[in-house]
Amino acid sequence: MPPLAKYLIRFVKCGECMSRTENVLTKRVLTDVKGLLTKKTRDAERKFIVEGWKSVEEAVNSGVKCDTILYDPHNVEEYKLLSLLERSSRAIYQAKAKEIESISDMVTSQGIIAVLPQFNHIAAFSSVLRKSEALIIALDAINDPGNLGTIIRACDWFGVDAVLIGKHSVDMYNPKVVRSTMGSLFHLPVLTDVDLTESLAECRNAGCTMYSTELQKSEDVRTIAFSKRSVIVIGSESHGVSENISVLADKRIKIPQFGKAESLNAAMACSVILSYLKL
Amino acid sequence: MPPLAKYLIRFVKCGECMSRTENVLTKRVLTDVKGLLTKKTRDAERKFIVEGWKSVEEAVNSGVKCDTILYDPHNVEEYKLLSLLERSSRAIYQAKAKEIESISDMVTSQGIIAVLPQFNHIAAFSSVLRKSEALIIALDAINDPGNLGTIIRACDWFGVDAVLIGKHSVDMYNPKVVRSTMGSLFHLPVLTDVDLTESLAECRNAGCTMYSTELQKSEDVRTIAFSKRSVIVIGSESHGVSENISVLADKRIKIPQFGKAESLNAAMACSVILSYLKL
Repeated sequence: MPPLAKYLIRFVKCGECMSRTENVLTKRVLTDVKGLLTKKTRDAERKFIVEGWKSVEEAVNSGVKCDTILYDPHNVEEYKLLSLLERSSRAIYQAKAKEIESISDMVTSQGIIAVLPQFNHIAAFSSVLRKSEALIIALDAINDPGNLGTIIRACDWFGVDAVLIGKHSVDMYNPKVVRSTMGSLFHLPVLTDVDLTESLAECRNAGCTMYSTELQKSEDVRTIAFSKRSVIVIGSESHGVSENISVLADKRIKIPQFGKAESLNAAMACSVILSYLKL
Repeated sequence: MPPLAKYLIRFVKCGECMSRTENVLTKRVLTDVKGLLTKKTRDAERKFIVEGWKSVEEAVNSGVKCDTILYDPHNVEEYKLLSLLERSSRAIYQAKAKEIESISDMVTSQGIIAVLPQFNHIAAFSSVLRKSEALIIALDAINDPGNLGTIIRACDWFGVDAVLIGKHSVDMYNPKVVRSTMGSLFHLPVLTDVDLTESLAECRNAGCTMYSTELQKSEDVRTIAFSKRSVIVIGSESHGVSENISVLADKRIKIPQFGKAESLNAAMACSVILSYLKL
């Protein structure tokens, strides 16, 4: 497949956007962008999709350079942003509402789709490990996209320094995850497809104390004197933290239960622990 | 429409379930149960649907008497529960997997659908108002079913005394809400379709202090000396607490933000506040 840059570029005029220069959206470009809805293509191309004016703005504000932009000229919310994208993106295309909808994951598409390069947060993560105070959240097998997005958002809200997403979790670049982070994905280093055994060993070698959240054989968070450099592992709702990860922990911790609910979901557990640590 | 009880009842034998007596599932019964997928029919019949062995068990354990049960004899997880349901439900039917799936809201249906009478928690709520210590959560316009379910679950976990769901929220008996409460709906008084202005006035007349969660003109939760009898209002993610509710509050409170996320969703905000109050 030839790179998108090779496509024929023509100049067209558009009443709505004051004769901006645009590329012509071909079926091929559309197919290429749609391809990024699958993890396989995202992994191969090292790109992902972000949709909605607000999220694209968060991406641009974080310094990410957009690869491809598709937008509906009849549904522009941010002309300033559009103008910035025209100058800074590799290719920008006007698209029909239904073309955007054919890619969109949202009930009502928001008129803009951006293709972005995937992150490389390895250096950022290394510098987190050198900080004198650090709070890292590690996620083991979080399978629900909405939950994963919500966790990233909560981590952002509470100023977590980095998030590690283990190999058995849903892909962070899944459009549902990206959308439910509400832009938080661009605010802190989030590493995906991580070999947790290796990365957690790295955290411990760097002097972090590792806490694993467990329902059984664990101590009430309120009895724990948390280290200033902590990594907290959150497991899946159905299976908890994997045994091979759990054995690496310095402490097994749990959230005390006051009512009759048997468990909290992973996103709630994460919010509660962060709330306990920060408030 | 004739009541379900009028349907012809025959006795059939089934290898799997040791010649239990069962009704014959007619198209009519199936249509009636399917009808409960819409709020209009749920409101008219004052019934709702619960699916999955675990959730039905939670319902039965809470003392609810099931109206109609549909189950797949090839997908029975709890024979003890089934036997109890046979004795205690008004009507029990064997159904094909695809019949259950036609009603099910789940990706993989769990082989059992129960029709239950809607709650009447007015007396339970009145007795909460007479307690010397009470924590009530009031929800104003929570539109996402998963969020509403998660909030009810968090309220259950943290031992909240009652939940009030305002008229502009998603219906508590929506199958997605019921499912995402993970049985917590049966653990505490949850009142739905509530006129919040009236009910909050009732709480205040009973001596509760009312707190409204707001992003603007609000005080950090950490600076608040919460009353032993509190009602906390959580608003929608997009619009916050409605102005006509907000003006009734004794205090406007907010969760301090440490990172760059602009907001927390309603379920996270609720978990964080409960966590702050309880831990």
